[in-house]
Amino acid sequence: MSDKALPESLTLEQFESAVAELREILGQDRVYTDDINELRAYRDVYATTKDELHMPSAAIAPESVEEIQKILAVARKYVVPLWTISTGKNFAYGGPAPRKAGYVVLDLKRMNRIIEVNEKYGYAVVEPGVSYFDLYNYLQAKKSKLWIDPAAPGWGSVLGNLTEHGAGYTPYGDHFLMNCGMQVVLADGSVVETGMGSASTSNTAHLHKYGHGPAVEGLFTQSNFGIVTKIGIWLMPEPPGYRPYMVTFPKEEDLYQITEVVAPLRLNMLIPNAATTVGLIWDACQRVTKKQYYLGKGPAPPSALKKIAEDLNIGMWNFYGALYGPPPLMDNNWKILEEAFRSIPGAKFYFEGDRPDDPAWKYRAQLMQGIPNMAEFSIMNWVGSGAHIDFAPRSPATGEDAMKQFTTIRDRAHEYGFDYIGEFLVGWRELLDVFMLVFDRTDDEERQRAHECFGKLIEDHAKLGYGEYRAHLDFMDQIAATYSWNDGALWKMHHRIKDALDPQGVLSPGKMGIWPESLRK
Amino acid sequence: MSDKALPESLTLEQFESAVAELREILGQDRVYTDDINELRAYRDVYATTKDELHMPSAAIAPESVEEIQKILAVARKYVVPLWTISTGKNFAYGGPAPRKAGYVVLDLKRMNRIIEVNEKYGYAVVEPGVSYFDLYNYLQAKKSKLWIDPAAPGWGSVLGNLTEHGAGYTPYGDHFLMNCGMQVVLADGSVVETGMGSASTSNTAHLHKYGHGPAVEGLFTQSNFGIVTKIGIWLMPEPPGYRPYMVTFPKEEDLYQITEVVAPLRLNMLIPNAATTVGLIWDACQRVTKKQYYLGKGPAPPSALKKIAEDLNIGMWNFYGALYGPPPLMDNNWKILEEAFRSIPGAKFYFEGDRPDDPAWKYRAQLMQGIPNMAEFSIMNWVGSGAHIDFAPRSPATGEDAMKQFTTIRDRAHEYGFDYIGEFLVGWRELLDVFMLVFDRTDDEERQRAHECFGKLIEDHAKLGYGEYRAHLDFMDQIAATYSWNDGALWKMHHRIKDALDPQGVLSPGKMGIWPESLRK
Repeated sequence: MSDKALPESLTLEQFESAVAELREILGQDRVYTDDINELRAYRDVYATTKDELHMPSAAIAPESVEEIQKILAVARKYVVPLWTISTGKNFAYGGPAPRKAGYVVLDLKRMNRIIEVNEKYGYAVVEPGVSYFDLYNYLQAKKSKLWIDPAAPGWGSVLGNLTEHGAGYTPYGDHFLMNCGMQVVLADGSVVETGMGSASTSNTAHLHKYGHGPAVEGLFTQSNFGIVTKIGIWLMPEPPGYRPYMVTFPKEEDLYQITEVVAPLRLNMLIPNAATTVGLIWDACQRVTKKQYYLGKGPAPPSALKKIAEDLNIGMWNFYGALYGPPPLMDNNWKILEEAFRSIPGAKFYFEGDRPDDPAWKYRAQLMQGIPNMAEFSIMNWVGSGAHIDFAPRSPATGEDAMKQFTTIRDRAHEYGFDYIGEFLVGWRELLDVFMLVFDRTDDEERQRAHECFGKLIEDHAKLGYGEYRAHLDFMDQIAATYSWNDGALWKMHHRIKDALDPQGVLSPGKMGIWPESLRK
Repeated sequence: MSDKALPESLTLEQFESAVAELREILGQDRVYTDDINELRAYRDVYATTKDELHMPSAAIAPESVEEIQKILAVARKYVVPLWTISTGKNFAYGGPAPRKAGYVVLDLKRMNRIIEVNEKYGYAVVEPGVSYFDLYNYLQAKKSKLWIDPAAPGWGSVLGNLTEHGAGYTPYGDHFLMNCGMQVVLADGSVVETGMGSASTSNTAHLHKYGHGPAVEGLFTQSNFGIVTKIGIWLMPEPPGYRPYMVTFPKEEDLYQITEVVAPLRLNMLIPNAATTVGLIWDACQRVTKKQYYLGKGPAPPSALKKIAEDLNIGMWNFYGALYGPPPLMDNNWKILEEAFRSIPGAKFYFEGDRPDDPAWKYRAQLMQGIPNMAEFSIMNWVGSGAHIDFAPRSPATGEDAMKQFTTIRDRAHEYGFDYIGEFLVGWRELLDVFMLVFDRTDDEERQRAHECFGKLIEDHAKLGYGEYRAHLDFMDQIAATYSWNDGALWKMHHRIKDALDPQGVLSPGKMGIWPESLRK
């Protein structure tokens, strides 16, 4: 174990004592320390940096809150940094890997109970290890009329995605907004129920979002103030009708007009879900690879993109939307939507049955209906041994901002030799751009280039006033530093709360740029 | 000033020094210390206890964040408890009065700027002193197509109501849910912008709810962790159609079936706003007083209620709802709604124009359309010199729970000699019961009885599992104590956060049962 990663400030002897105590709590088979056979599963296979930077010293898999409480006692005693993951599928942002080498991964995948599904009121209560597939399959088996709202990859944790402010594609796509009730274990081992659930006799824990006093759930999202062990999440009742549709647009610059058209339709709920405008390559990856069209270095040239568009009968931008509700409403809304989209020259319309052999259509239609799948991983096939980190800034939902984001990212990507693979979503009132920086993970030089490109994108967007909503491990500090209004007053407050709730700093140090006192500067 | 209320632990001399420093900051005319001529305005005219219990020692009215920062320096130096109010119209829950006598009221009514209204994106940014009337009038003057969502009394603060988890009657009725961006001054004077607004160059502060890292806005609602000086609030675009309606039901026990009918319609968004079932007396108060029907002691008997229902052509329960959207949607939904309500024997339907002389219809139709008014204060005329405190528990939205709440409250009210004056609202998934305990504020014995009755209601409901969402000053501790799961773990956490952010405990001590360390026995 000579070059084994260890928690900072722990000697090998101390580490081994801590591990021995953890084994007493969890038994032999739920404490993992073997770098080769066990801990490789906790690597971030999509990292732009070397695996060693995020190599855990151990991983542990409790099955209950009581075990977590015992683990915390050991962590506090030895000052062991615990990096909490749910299913560990947060790929593009770090996957299961910890912020720094030597941390112990607190892997909650075995806490995977679906505690309750309430068909009448439309909610579920789940533990961290429950994936979208798990919940979907459970509901299907019960012939439930409730929909889930999955993130694009269905293996993700319902709880993990919600606490990361993740989004989906049905009208319930703002996952944190649909949270109702949370259970949190604090660093000192105390267990807190939030909201109405904090009343001892409560029967409304998952029916009403606010209890008496402050609403604290948000504190435990994108943070390291506690370990979330249970959430309530509202589920959408099956609507009386569902009609997905797709509109393709031929030119890059159409993004301007698409955004101008979509934003007011979204605000007025004529488009009631995350309206998604998908770039050409993102869509194309479901059916083709880069090599089929371009064998050179650097980004695929416009001629290749044009050929792909023709071959696959898709646009430079492809808008996916859906109508939900009773047929008279869908008929009414479609008239308005069709007229609006037709104002953009070259718009082509597709409906159910029009694209039987297009897997991109198929998985989008599924996502907007709450059916989880893994189709989006086809994007990794665009290049050989593909990996990606995601750059996800928010801007106002205007044509001008959309084009500014798109061209800024595209130009930087091209400068560094990468393709633009992106999509734009209009949320309640803002535009979310998700750019997948896809690179060959077996090519060290390319990884390094991807890393540099990503850092530049953060700088570019900070200048433009666009903040990122999520961050890969390696960029959490840099992105946090862009949220610097008034000399970083918000992070100073986060740090005061961190020190109050986790004085030893054992919970996920560095998560989103929040560090315990001992590790600040 | 011999029997003047002073902040606990301050001598008169210290208090006078503090006031002198405050006058240096704010001038003579924005520091109020005269009990008779100035501070009487800060009484809770609806208290069930004696005025002396909530008599402030002073009140101060800053006009800017900078002045608040200077005030905080004085408050920290002398340990002056500051009780923050916005417009001070939180009647039924304490109005402008502080939790305890001797506090200094930090009155933010002069911070009343409407900082921005964004017509395109549908939001406003306001300071604490902006009332619903102010914002409505501003929008009307600009011929805006945005609606506001007022609380029933239009003089209330937009910011104050939102931070108290208040509700309104349009589809945007969950006010805190519509919050986007917040500015908070912490006890140490540091100013924090939350969410995207914490990025120095942000252009999405009021467009997207979550920034990077934890969502902290909820921390500053129903709490005393900071002073909220600015909020963004989303405004609803005028829908393409609006049709209010009313359905009356003849019998008390109809509440069971009304709730069973309404809950799934609400969950499925066929009723998209706070569906309100109003009790007979609540509605009747718009046109009649108790004395016209009953001159005896105690609650009005069933015969009187029956006569009122006949005279006014209203039901024992009166459901107010509205259709919003394009006419085909409203037509479609109304068919479903009408059939559902008709399943309840005796249901009668009313639409625009059917009740030209009924002020209850008029103000309900206004509220559901975002037009602020003060009509609901007519309820105070039910008895002479009427005052009220409001009991507002949440339960599951079932007929059984509705009847259990209603009968429990009614029976307690009658036991203590009061009328049942209540309404039920179905929120996203829960039932909110608002019971107005109306009493004669000039009658000491009746005040005392009201006080005792209220305390009993809290006990009753805690046993039934129904928690209150809001609390009058005098009952904050008792209600907080019902949120006692796991030995009060949530309040213990609140107290740790309180001590971290406000170690001297100068901000609104005792608000919602959150006390600084020095005052936690």
